[in-house]
Formats: sequence, structure tokens, C-alpha cells
Amino acid sequence: MEKIKVAIVGYGNVGRGVHCAVDRNPDMELVQIITRDPDRVKKHVKKIPVYAIGDFKKTADIAILCCGSKDDIFGAASRAKHFKVRINDPEINGQGPYFAQFFNTVDSFDTHARIPAYHAAMEHYAAGNRHTAIISAGWDPGTFSLERVMADAFIPEARHYTFWGPGVSQGHSDAVRSIQGVLDARQYTLPVDSAMRRVRKCANPRLRSCDKHTRLVYVVAHKGASRKKIVKEIKLMPHYFSEYDTKVVFISESEMMKKHSHYPHGGFVMATNQKGVGSRALLEYRCEWGSNAEATGNILTACARACFRMNRAKKYGAFTMLDLPAAYFSLHSKRKLLAEYM
Amino acid sequence: MEKIKVAIVGYGNVGRGVHCAVDRNPDMELVQIITRDPDRVKKHVKKIPVYAIGDFKKTADIAILCCGSKDDIFGAASRAKHFKVRINDPEINGQGPYFAQFFNTVDSFDTHARIPAYHAAMEHYAAGNRHTAIISAGWDPGTFSLERVMADAFIPEARHYTFWGPGVSQGHSDAVRSIQGVLDARQYTLPVDSAMRRVRKCANPRLRSCDKHTRLVYVVAHKGASRKKIVKEIKLMPHYFSEYDTKVVFISESEMMKKHSHYPHGGFVMATNQKGVGSRALLEYRCEWGSNAEATGNILTACARACFRMNRAKKYGAFTMLDLPAAYFSLHSKRKLLAEYM
Repeated sequence: MEKIKVAIVGYGNVGRGVHCAVDRNPDMELVQIITRDPDRVKKHVKKIPVYAIGDFKKTADIAILCCGSKDDIFGAASRAKHFKVRINDPEINGQGPYFAQFFNTVDSFDTHARIPAYHAAMEHYAAGNRHTAIISAGWDPGTFSLERVMADAFIPEARHYTFWGPGVSQGHSDAVRSIQGVLDARQYTLPVDSAMRRVRKCANPRLRSCDKHTRLVYVVAHKGASRKKIVKEIKLMPHYFSEYDTKVVFISESEMMKKHSHYPHGGFVMATNQKGVGSRALLEYRCEWGSNAEATGNILTACARACFRMNRAKKYGAFTMLDLPAAYFSLHSKRKLLAEYM
Repeated sequence: MEKIKVAIVGYGNVGRGVHCAVDRNPDMELVQIITRDPDRVKKHVKKIPVYAIGDFKKTADIAILCCGSKDDIFGAASRAKHFKVRINDPEINGQGPYFAQFFNTVDSFDTHARIPAYHAAMEHYAAGNRHTAIISAGWDPGTFSLERVMADAFIPEARHYTFWGPGVSQGHSDAVRSIQGVLDARQYTLPVDSAMRRVRKCANPRLRSCDKHTRLVYVVAHKGASRKKIVKEIKLMPHYFSEYDTKVVFISESEMMKKHSHYPHGGFVMATNQKGVGSRALLEYRCEWGSNAEATGNILTACARACFRMNRAKKYGAFTMLDLPAAYFSLHSKRKLLAEYM
């Protein structure tokens, strides 16, 4: 079997998750890692060629972009309406548009509000180079987007709800870490059981994010820092905590290391029919991931297979998981899917 | 907006479910009903033209086939390897191949073992007439097939499990009704909680269908019939009950009417990683449908939209829901999906 040749761009937690996943998918092989810091990566990876960002080989079928959404994948300059056809510097529009010139790409760009703009940029660079770009793949955006769209289609006039957690939110953990006196922090987002029960009863409640979630923060404080002040600062932090029922727990550095060094995450997508219209209908999708980065890595890898197939079918430009048939994600042949999975 | 013109073939429970769903999808309109018994249907449906099977108009964009899987959709003669290009009689190969000559079609053919053969027949008749046929749509086969394939792709080397129920199995209810002395019967399939808990723990158990399900049968007996004999006959019935933990409850005719005249169904698809390989991963999809027929009707209707779009994109032949991008099921524009559903 001819294997799909994969390049990983960015070798942090998600990059390592993709590496594991590619190794466990027999139709794929990792052919190169592209990183800002080849020396660091070469210490950990011995058998795979490692290149600097400006110095890679164009041998891969797909580049899986594992860099951060906030600044790396799609830069600020991308807000410009017109794109140059060729950009020589990944810092101009971000690594997404840059690499879409040279490879088919898959990424997990997850800044929801900027997805339409990012899609437009990737459409331009991918289509202009006869490449296929699958953007915003992962579990949310990604599999949760799929489930929202399908539930909405399969229950007429459905109401859908997304609950996150239990799991670690990196953004919220970072926000707490920025507070003076905080040495380390881990923020767990927890779904509110009573809210989920109301949804499951087709009660069609109107729920704000703070009705659906509570926040539990583990903090390692500097010796001598005022715990009272830290708690107050967390609970009053706008957007992140001020609207939420938030609990702060101080723990030791060793407990943080022992109990909170994995980054689990997950959540629920639910949809019901409107109360009183037709018979009861509930669709519920749930994921529990022991490692958020491995989860994203797994899904990006399945999307790389789909991306490869889209490109072979001459579907050029930018797409999301919503544009991919489920069979494209699968290792299995059409014959096997028909006989064993239907 | 130009509406998608739908014909319903067969006007039983599923046909009525499709009728409700089409009425609630603003981009569609029902233009005709095709049935073996126009006189019966005309009593209930006043505003929609009703035609006999040999006498329909070719005006619809899609025909949704709502007849039974067992004999109607795909007949016994279809086991022949070679198909005639034109068949004049729906009884020869079944209504699927027959109507695929005249319309794009969607159906819920659910005899799992015969899906590959049915696919081949529909491929022949649909592709030969530049039509698109979506076969075996519904919740299982259908949305459950989608979830099995996706879970399998998103968790490398996943094990997946399907649990059915709580809900009424028509096949099992019919089997009980065939016993002498039984006036009416309703069989509920119930998933086994302890088995579901083991799966959720990533224990990777090997489970037979009888480890995953128990059966609860409500029976209305003829006056004077031996209840003991009926219970024995049910519990010993091979394939249907003999391997299962089965409970039989006798009730009155009025209780049957009052409490069991809806046909709810549902189930679970779960997938986990193999224990000890990578971090914990669990995907779980669940549906609860107050009316099995409405559920199938809803999903068939969303698939009709997808079928229409596939045909416009010149994708001719037979497909399953595994071949359809999620966006195709949706009423919403690409722009709206990108901005609000990702």
C-alpha cells in the first residue's frame, strides 16, 4: 500500500499527539517535522528528518499544522482583504496561508469568531496552488461542529446545546497564571448537571455559558502571597470568571505535578425538538479525552487522510469537517464499510 | 427560494413521518404521494395528489421510499447478478431499483446483511439513469453507521459498541404476535446498564448481543389461553429470545392501547481506545426518539436534501450517509454554518 506522507509543522503537545496517531494509522507515514526550533526537536526525535520553517522539503502529501491558533496559524495582517498570491514569510499572514502554498494542509484553528476570515484566506492560497486545506479540525471546532449541524438537520427546528468539560481550559489556566503571586494554576471547566438534565427533558431552556458551566481552579501560590487577594482577583476577572460560579483551591507544587499534569477534556453536544412539537427527540454526543492534545492529534490525522482524498478528487481550496463525507476519514475500504459498518 | 419537490412512496408510519418532516423543512414541498392503495390514502390526505404505483407523475426531484425493507424495497429476484436496464414492474427487483429509474431516491433499507447487494442494484439503476440514490438512511443503519465509522477513525484502533433501546422492536413484537393465544404484543429491547458501564471504563469487553440487551415483552392474551404456555414459547424462541434474559408481562387490551401505542426507540454507539494504549478516549452517541417512524422520517428528509445536492453536483449512482458531507444535510448556507456552527 502506498502510504500517505505526512509532515508535522510545530512539535508541541499537539504535534506529538499527531506523531503518535500517524504511527498508529497503517496507511500513513511521518516524513518530516518542521519547527521553529530544530535543535530542541532533534533531541527527542531521532528517526524523522527535522527542518526549520524556511528550510523544509516539499516531499509530503499533507502538512498537519500543529502551531497555536492565537498568533501562529493566522496572523493579524490577514485582516487585509487582498492576499498576495505568493508570500515568502510565514509571519505575514500566518503559517496557514504560508504552508497552503506548498502543501495540502490540515489545522485546528479554533478562534471561532475568526473562522470565516481564516477560511477566506486559506481558500485563496490553497485553491491558487491546487491544494486542499482542511481548517478548524479537532473536537471543538470539529467533531462538535459536525454533531451540531447533523442534530440540527435530523430534528426539524431543533435547539442545540454545547457543554464543555469536565476538563482543563488552557486559556483560563493561563489567565490565572498571569495573576501576581500565582506560581502555577489549572482551571477545570465543569458542566452543570442540573442544566444538562433540563435539556435532556426537552425543556428547551435558554442557557448562558455561565448557566451551563462552573469553574474549579487549582492554584499553587508563591510563599507569602495573599491567598485572599488571589481568590478575589480570580473571581472578579471579567469574561473569564466574573459571571461564573468559581471555586478556588490552593494546593502544593507537588500535588499539582502529581494530580494535574495530564490535560483531560471533553464535553457534550445535545439537541432536542421544541417542546410540544412532534414526539420527543433527543440526540446527545459526548467525548471524554484523557489527553486533549492526543485527541486533537487523532482527529487531525483522520482529517489528513480525508484531505488527501479530497485533493486526489481535485477538490481544491479550503474546507471544514462539515464538507467531508465520513467515509473519507476512515482507513477502511468502501466495501468493508458497506458490509461491516452500516 | 426554489423548493425541493418531494414524492413519498408508501404512506404508512414512516411515510407519515416524512410528510410531517417535509412540512417542517422550509426548503421542501411535498408534490405527490405514490401508494399501492390510493383510495385509503386519499381519505387522510386532501391537499396532495395521490397516485397508484404504476400511475405517478415524474415531476418530483426526489422520491422518498417509505415501504418495508423485507419485501418491498428490494425483492428476492434482485439476487440475480445481472439487472435489466429497464424494468416495468416494481415487483421484479423491488421498489428501490424500480423507482431509481425515474427519480433520485432516498430509502431506509435496513436489512444489514443485504446492504452490499442492494447497493449494487441501486448503483446500476440510478447511475444508468443519471440519478442519485441514498440507500439505508435512518438511525440504524444511518446515523449510527456514521458514528461507528467516525469514532473508529478518530480513535486509532478503537473498539466500538452498539446498544439498542430502550425501545420497541417491531420484528420481535411481530414474532410474539405469531404465537397462538396472543392477541397483541409489544417487545421492548433494553440496554444492559452494567455492560454500558464496562464499555465506558475502556474495559474493552467482548460482548454478544445478549450481554448488551434484555427483552421485556408486554402481551395481551386471548381469554382462556394458557399464559404459562405463551411464556414458555416466547422464551424458547430461537434467535429472537432464547439467548436473552427475557421478561414477559401480561396486560389488558386497554392498558396496551393506553401505554404502548407509541413506538419509541433509541440506542447508543460507544467507542473507546484499547486499554493501556494512549490516554483514555471515549466517544458516545445516543438517541432517544419518542416515535421511531418520525425519527426515520426526519432523517430521510434531511437525506433527501443531501441527495438533491449530490445530483446537482452530478454524483450519480448509489450512496449511503457515509458518502455525504454533513453540510449537505443542512438547511443552512455555507456562510451561516462557518459563522455559527463551527
